[in-house]
Amino acid sequence: MAKTEKTLDDLFLHTLKDIYYAEKQILKALPKMAKNAESEELKAAFETHREQTQGQIERLEEVFKMLGKPARGVACEAINGIIEEGKELMEDFADSPALDAGILAAAQAVEHYEITRYGSLRTWANELGMKDAAKLFDATLKEEKDTDLLLSRMAESRVNVKAA
Amino acid sequence: MAKTEKTLDDLFLHTLKDIYYAEKQILKALPKMAKNAESEELKAAFETHREQTQGQIERLEEVFKMLGKPARGVACEAINGIIEEGKELMEDFADSPALDAGILAAAQAVEHYEITRYGSLRTWANELGMKDAAKLFDATLKEEKDTDLLLSRMAESRVNVKAA
Repeated sequence: MAKTEKTLDDLFLHTLKDIYYAEKQILKALPKMAKNAESEELKAAFETHREQTQGQIERLEEVFKMLGKPARGVACEAINGIIEEGKELMEDFADSPALDAGILAAAQAVEHYEITRYGSLRTWANELGMKDAAKLFDATLKEEKDTDLLLSRMAESRVNVKAA
Repeated sequence: MAKTEKTLDDLFLHTLKDIYYAEKQILKALPKMAKNAESEELKAAFETHREQTQGQIERLEEVFKMLGKPARGVACEAINGIIEEGKELMEDFADSPALDAGILAAAQAVEHYEITRYGSLRTWANELGMKDAAKLFDATLKEEKDTDLLLSRMAESRVNVKAA
């Protein structure tokens, strides 16, 4: 029997599961990053982002509901690799004045992964006529971009001045 | 003996090696993505980006030279995971009308990884007073952002319309 041809709906669902898994991994990683960060400002940023991440997971669950599918993740090697690199960095740079600069960079790698995936999902939701889903992705995308911008500003200001 | 304390210079060199490895993996992955892409426009975009990537690798080699260090990569789990996901997608969506949409998304995940790493490197180069290195990273960053924008436009226009 020939394989059923996959469509954009399949790609959409697959990527939804991918980012659902990724968000859950990020939710687990954020408290560790907050704990390791030295700067209070950075700790606070991670705590805020943890709360946002919980809301983002709920938005994804809404989209699964719209599709009439159970909310389920699928292992995402990309986020696993990004988080693993962050962990190694926190070990290698423990007690280093450059620790926070490294944690910031690791967090920005996470943000950019989310930005790219939500960007694709938003485009596809629009193409598939799922305007409500597109709006949810758009809201998350705005949060991710704001977080990335905040982290960039922090990287450019105090953390690196301290580390240099 | 106590471990020598790591500084921002160490973080900079480590990340330089990380992106050097990543660029080399990307250079190998791009022809495969071009080969799998159905759209001529997408194939051409990957070919152009392959040439850019070669130039970006040369810029990294210049920075290694500025540091008086051999140009050497260090395994980067993040890019390995991102590329692996792209490969799986190309297999799962072979002969699917959504193949190009998926390849585009995979390529954008690669771009965003590069954007975040070059952004951190540029910030650190400035902090470390390496203005010439910062300029090289800035040139690459501009290319990566342009490529991402081009891919976004392609995703929003024909590829997805075809796949929907």
